[in-house]
Amino acid sequence: MARRTVDVPALVESARAGSPRAVARLISLVEDGHESLREVMAALTPHAGSAYVIGLTGSPGVGKSTTTTALVGAFRERGLRVGVLAVDPSSPFSGGALLGDRVRMQDHALDPEVYIRSMASRGHLGGLSFTTPQAIRVLDAAGCDVVLVETVGVGQSEVEIAGLADTSVVLLAPGMGDGIQAAKAGILEIGDVFVVNKADRDGADATVRDLRHMISLGDRTEPGLWRPPVVKAVAAQKVGIDEVMEALDKHRAFVEENGELARRRERRAADEIETIVLATLRARFSHVAGHAGVVRLAREVLAGHLDPYAAADRLVVELGEQLTA
Amino acid sequence: MARRTVDVPALVESARAGSPRAVARLISLVEDGHESLREVMAALTPHAGSAYVIGLTGSPGVGKSTTTTALVGAFRERGLRVGVLAVDPSSPFSGGALLGDRVRMQDHALDPEVYIRSMASRGHLGGLSFTTPQAIRVLDAAGCDVVLVETVGVGQSEVEIAGLADTSVVLLAPGMGDGIQAAKAGILEIGDVFVVNKADRDGADATVRDLRHMISLGDRTEPGLWRPPVVKAVAAQKVGIDEVMEALDKHRAFVEENGELARRRERRAADEIETIVLATLRARFSHVAGHAGVVRLAREVLAGHLDPYAAADRLVVELGEQLTA
Repeated sequence: MARRTVDVPALVESARAGSPRAVARLISLVEDGHESLREVMAALTPHAGSAYVIGLTGSPGVGKSTTTTALVGAFRERGLRVGVLAVDPSSPFSGGALLGDRVRMQDHALDPEVYIRSMASRGHLGGLSFTTPQAIRVLDAAGCDVVLVETVGVGQSEVEIAGLADTSVVLLAPGMGDGIQAAKAGILEIGDVFVVNKADRDGADATVRDLRHMISLGDRTEPGLWRPPVVKAVAAQKVGIDEVMEALDKHRAFVEENGELARRRERRAADEIETIVLATLRARFSHVAGHAGVVRLAREVLAGHLDPYAAADRLVVELGEQLTA
Repeated sequence: MARRTVDVPALVESARAGSPRAVARLISLVEDGHESLREVMAALTPHAGSAYVIGLTGSPGVGKSTTTTALVGAFRERGLRVGVLAVDPSSPFSGGALLGDRVRMQDHALDPEVYIRSMASRGHLGGLSFTTPQAIRVLDAAGCDVVLVETVGVGQSEVEIAGLADTSVVLLAPGMGDGIQAAKAGILEIGDVFVVNKADRDGADATVRDLRHMISLGDRTEPGLWRPPVVKAVAAQKVGIDEVMEALDKHRAFVEENGELARRRERRAADEIETIVLATLRARFSHVAGHAGVVRLAREVLAGHLDPYAAADRLVVELGEQLTA
């Protein structure tokens, strides 16, 4: 099937000029793993690097999209341009959830200074670890001052993605996932700011106490290290949002000052490069080995003439020759 | 930490002579991704290839271990040597479950012609897709006529592993995961034999009907294709086990005759080789790139001087040079 050709320079120019359509189209190219991606990233990279990336993660039901919406509102009040990337496939942004949430988010959808985009994990290449940094780059180059990356804190990869943000916010709700649950899910390590949302419900104080206790048990209480604050909020009523914003500002100032921000960004870029390398190797390997070649070796293994490591060695050498050719 | 050196030839000889200790030790080497694995596989490969591999998959609670135990008994009555590989981390074999199941399985544990082994997914290298075929090879070379690979049908990788068996058995229980659930989980495609276990419970006939209906909607009803039978059983009371064995025998005869068995085994060996190649590339890449090298490139990307694809290209070329050196 012939793929529609893409006028990359024109698309990038439109995105930088503020066209939501162009931004959406660029993120679709990322999501599709389109052949023009290399050209797209080359065109965007010089214009990226000024957006501050905030990760938001939490189990389904803690009020991620409501909190995201409230934070978008708060950043808009500061006159900032905001990008929202929802990489949770079950998120309202991808059309699978409650109408109420969607309507609330729709307010911002009419705001030309807010880009909202959901991304599905289509399982190709490196998955979310491949597409997320590229989609952030699109929003960054399009002039977003802040990019909110919302992921559901269920799978390890989603947690890792959230952990790569400049500031990672972990959301909990009373009685849903208290301290120990958070520790199990691996989100205790990645949170820079913890928000106990739906704090008007029973058990909110216990959840806050549990969390603070769990945090105090970690090694993050040493002097000079960031001690993650635990903030209560009722995002649906915009309660506690000022406090969350204050915590975000403090963390940003902290990581900017002590060099941690630069280190996080280096790690994020390094991870992105490695993911592309592995995807490239995988693709080249398929090309080199071909189906027939691997099956021929597989037959030798089945006949007991060749062990699978020796078979793999042959393919690795072939691949090496092809990579340097 | 110095690793204990392994006398691979002696260990392989002991395993082939029927030492359960040697078999267990070899599978531990597989599980650990031990440095001697290459030598182990080279020593085992010429002696492998005669075991028939049966995959069993199903959600937690359908009675996988009870059914496995009953099948082990049936194969033992035929005088066959049986290996059991439980790659479900929550399986009784790995020590996490009901005492009743364990005691039942213990009967076979005293039988020198039965090897029972649980394997955890330790997350290194290629995970279960890396370790499972190697562990099967250990049991195969140790003289097992039949290897039962039990996986929990939850994750995609477990389902894939089950699907790579010579014959794949999918277990269900009434009211737990009927036809549509099975279709969602992707197990409808991989089942060669479906067993509705706990068939003395309400709803068993409905589950059988649902499954047959779902199967009839697939493309597996064409002439010349295998049409998966749906068998009722109460494994805990050994009811229906003869019928399951009959279905297994029929499927085996079918795939042996039409060449599908050879194709499945080729695919399994090819997958194994590819997994080793990718693990090798990943390891070599880490070696080539080093932390400093990637971070240097990451900084150039962050400065906007280099896009991530161009950075990846540089590493790929370096890797190619190293692979052919």
